[in-house]
Amino acid sequence: MGDQATPPAPELAAMAINDGPCLKHPFSDRAPVRLIVCRPDGGAGLAGQRVRAGGWVKTGREQGKGSFAFLEVNDGSCPANLQVIVDAGVADLSTLVQTGTCVLVEGLLKVPPEGTKQKIELRVDKVLHVGPTDPASYPIPKTKLSLEFLRDHIHLRPRTNTISAVARIRNALAFATHSFFQEHGFLYVHTPIITTSDCEGAGEMFQATTLISEAEKLDKELILNPPPTEADIEAAKCTVGEKSSVVAQLKAAKATKEDISASVSDLKKAKENLSRVEERAKLKPGIPKKDGKIDYGQDFFGRQAFLTVSGQLQVETYACAVSSVYTFGPTFRAEHSHTSRHLAEFWMVEPEIAFADLQDDMNCAEAYVKYMCQWLLNKCFDDMELMAKLYDKGCIDRLRMVSSTPFERITYTEAVQLLEEAVRGGKEFEKNVEWGIDLASEHERYLTEDIFKKPVIVYNYPKGIKAFYMRLNDDSKTVAAMDILVPKVGELIGGSQREERYEVIQQRIAEMGLPLEPYEWYLDLRRYGTVKHCGFGLGFERMILFATGIDNIRDVIPFPRYPGRADL
Amino acid sequence: MGDQATPPAPELAAMAINDGPCLKHPFSDRAPVRLIVCRPDGGAGLAGQRVRAGGWVKTGREQGKGSFAFLEVNDGSCPANLQVIVDAGVADLSTLVQTGTCVLVEGLLKVPPEGTKQKIELRVDKVLHVGPTDPASYPIPKTKLSLEFLRDHIHLRPRTNTISAVARIRNALAFATHSFFQEHGFLYVHTPIITTSDCEGAGEMFQATTLISEAEKLDKELILNPPPTEADIEAAKCTVGEKSSVVAQLKAAKATKEDISASVSDLKKAKENLSRVEERAKLKPGIPKKDGKIDYGQDFFGRQAFLTVSGQLQVETYACAVSSVYTFGPTFRAEHSHTSRHLAEFWMVEPEIAFADLQDDMNCAEAYVKYMCQWLLNKCFDDMELMAKLYDKGCIDRLRMVSSTPFERITYTEAVQLLEEAVRGGKEFEKNVEWGIDLASEHERYLTEDIFKKPVIVYNYPKGIKAFYMRLNDDSKTVAAMDILVPKVGELIGGSQREERYEVIQQRIAEMGLPLEPYEWYLDLRRYGTVKHCGFGLGFERMILFATGIDNIRDVIPFPRYPGRADL
Repeated sequence: MGDQATPPAPELAAMAINDGPCLKHPFSDRAPVRLIVCRPDGGAGLAGQRVRAGGWVKTGREQGKGSFAFLEVNDGSCPANLQVIVDAGVADLSTLVQTGTCVLVEGLLKVPPEGTKQKIELRVDKVLHVGPTDPASYPIPKTKLSLEFLRDHIHLRPRTNTISAVARIRNALAFATHSFFQEHGFLYVHTPIITTSDCEGAGEMFQATTLISEAEKLDKELILNPPPTEADIEAAKCTVGEKSSVVAQLKAAKATKEDISASVSDLKKAKENLSRVEERAKLKPGIPKKDGKIDYGQDFFGRQAFLTVSGQLQVETYACAVSSVYTFGPTFRAEHSHTSRHLAEFWMVEPEIAFADLQDDMNCAEAYVKYMCQWLLNKCFDDMELMAKLYDKGCIDRLRMVSSTPFERITYTEAVQLLEEAVRGGKEFEKNVEWGIDLASEHERYLTEDIFKKPVIVYNYPKGIKAFYMRLNDDSKTVAAMDILVPKVGELIGGSQREERYEVIQQRIAEMGLPLEPYEWYLDLRRYGTVKHCGFGLGFERMILFATGIDNIRDVIPFPRYPGRADL
Repeated sequence: MGDQATPPAPELAAMAINDGPCLKHPFSDRAPVRLIVCRPDGGAGLAGQRVRAGGWVKTGREQGKGSFAFLEVNDGSCPANLQVIVDAGVADLSTLVQTGTCVLVEGLLKVPPEGTKQKIELRVDKVLHVGPTDPASYPIPKTKLSLEFLRDHIHLRPRTNTISAVARIRNALAFATHSFFQEHGFLYVHTPIITTSDCEGAGEMFQATTLISEAEKLDKELILNPPPTEADIEAAKCTVGEKSSVVAQLKAAKATKEDISASVSDLKKAKENLSRVEERAKLKPGIPKKDGKIDYGQDFFGRQAFLTVSGQLQVETYACAVSSVYTFGPTFRAEHSHTSRHLAEFWMVEPEIAFADLQDDMNCAEAYVKYMCQWLLNKCFDDMELMAKLYDKGCIDRLRMVSSTPFERITYTEAVQLLEEAVRGGKEFEKNVEWGIDLASEHERYLTEDIFKKPVIVYNYPKGIKAFYMRLNDDSKTVAAMDILVPKVGELIGGSQREERYEVIQQRIAEMGLPLEPYEWYLDLRRYGTVKHCGFGLGFERMILFATGIDNIRDVIPFPRYPGRADL
């Protein structure tokens, strides 16, 4: 031990992505270099360098009568593959060329002959590792596979072009989110996943509990070790009585101190045994009940607990203390929706801003969406090109349009007028349009895709269709709510100015038939040092659908959860 | 509608934190300016500017026989308060001076008279908003409050100096985490919260279920609308029989087509009713069972589901496809731990790196911890000063030491030898030290705090005390695992190289008495294109405890969950 046993500390120098030389792995001299072909020059500037490269073979073929092989190797750093050439003398080519094989190789980067697509290729002189793949059983061979098929191989699908590109886009949007809010002085707040509050019935909730597993444990225990019978209890009581008599007799007979104390000790043991037996006799199999109802007092948190449907109410406690905050975390809905737009577990971004009103809220939301679009254009252009090629040829133009065009802003009343005009003009909707309805997806998409052909912010909704916490407007009919509608997905963001007036919000809770008691903490924020504030929520997967043009939300989250499915 | 109704799109220009002028709110001309006093010059450079400022009054006092008031106002952007001076002619001073009052004011920034602590003060000429606080009932008055007391007022505690500083430190460490991994080419992957896998029994799990709520719903429904009795079923059957005879009679009597078809329709309705009645008769109150066990086939996901204890196994599917990945999300333990170091819900950071071994893993982990320490010194120095003053005077020096000193690296065997030497030298431990034990917290802290006085990485642990997925070393006795121990908290990070050899891991699963079937997907990663890889997990709250010196983990997470408590 001591100094000679201590490997050198790693360099802290940041390695820029997609930029500059990167011929050393950040944490290792032995590990492979990444990001070779995703450099702006396609890697050409690295010609002549000796490198280690590692990745998975996308396609491989033996050439020159088996004297060498071409491998297209991908390490996940970008959609492009590194072209690798291995001579038969260096390794067994038949294993290397199989799709899915993992390789770690060393060699010289060279400019390929004129006329080849690649800007650089790797001439291998050492094969350091091969993780073979049996093509007969490999579940995701080279052939084009449907996204639906891939959902049944969720552990291998990140090795496909689409799912790895989605992973990079998702990563980029997540970091764009943090960068945007951090640049603007917002604090990231971790709101709870397990909650005892209900965000005004935003949806059905999953219960988080230990009652069932505790009951199952007890059931097993009671089978191994059955609870005492009436007779067992009687016997234990009888023993106590006997021991008690012995003590009394010895005391009456003035026996020795030792004898008395031994009998007292016996009695004590008998009493302990009796109380143990009586305690065990109370054990009942199944979930504990009290007055005919489940006894949540015995659950882990001493009360009923759920998985959160939104962090908004909780994050307001931070906005009303440190001004600008945001959450970014998983949220849940236990709804039996089998659509391509719903998940039981999904991620939401929820900023909350103090000293700000609905206009500021719209400004923030619009700036955030634009920032994300621009970020993707700057950082994931190659992945976006893949999306344009495979899923939605308009997706890059859409990002450009959204990042550069001011969003349309119209009131709900104006939106309904426009839709009514469209109906008069012959447009047919499944759901009737009239003031007071909750706009359906078809209405939202018509507004953004057909009328304005750009994102639309609809604001000032009828109070009857919105939550109690949204600020009542002076007309007493509408609330300061806003939704951002975008082409392709419809509603991307929903937000509102929150009701900061104590009397008004108390009355709204009562009007909605909700009990006051569970909201006392929320009312405290209005009772003490109340502040005008607003916020919104963005469904993170919706944003990815919007950006990529992919149709099914199950393909833009790594591990989709929906009714009947929770793989891994 | 149209252009005149559309407010201007917000500026996208990033606003740097703690740097440069910031006299405009990023999303509003009406909202207050922040970050005035946390500028390096204490705000002095802003003298002469007219600004809006908003925040909560920390302390206030009337002066000059009530002719004006001094307010210390904080908006959460930094620990320092803005000194605000309001004349009696401008507003009712008695409300303003109460601790907890929210104010939005406008005025001129001026350099205060010589000899004052502040570098700038705001002379108010307009009060735009007051959110009053009744000092008689305000739960968190100016007096010093214990952290324990504040836990009972979780919705108001972010308004205190300590909890808001912790919020900024937590935010900084979260963004440092993302920045570090993004700079090094890692992709952020959202592993699932609801899982059907068990990370090798890392701990007791919460169940996520809809069975109980569905059962409760059914119970209510059955009370309102009791299930059919035997007699009801008999009656329904009887009706079917009767209607059936009518049809037969009409047919035999060659009745009109209309009459026959009417009777057939009646029969159909009677049959439908019968099957409805029979279906309802099957409804049983309570949680659905099958063969005496709970029927998870009827749960939301069609099987038993839990809250994750770690995203490691799942994130490995991405590492084995896109090379370098990390998770940062909530994890759960349903353990009845009432210590100051455990939570039922906490956040973990779990990187996973392909083409990398245990040394690389240690390099990455060490670089990450150093990066976070340096980040706090750079970005949260004022908050760290508060921590040093209130909780741990050594915390700043500790960050400096950790960010600049290479971590000691010793094998488990060496660690045990050192501890045995210490025992021979008179040191007493509660738990006996011998090769093969799992090091206890007292041992870990002795190594890092007393022997080395710096972070220590212990590696190559006995296989008997570690998980099946850790790579077996050539000695067949130890595995390539490592823990990072730091002063103040002990174990901060646990990691390992993963067993990438198919036959070996299969055998290890069997050896541990685990069933193979649930791990088939995990084995697939070794079956197809296997790669050397490693990773680690950092308990995010442990890192905050380490950085701040705060004692109880319940005070470094916004909404702590532990046995018996899940407020909000």
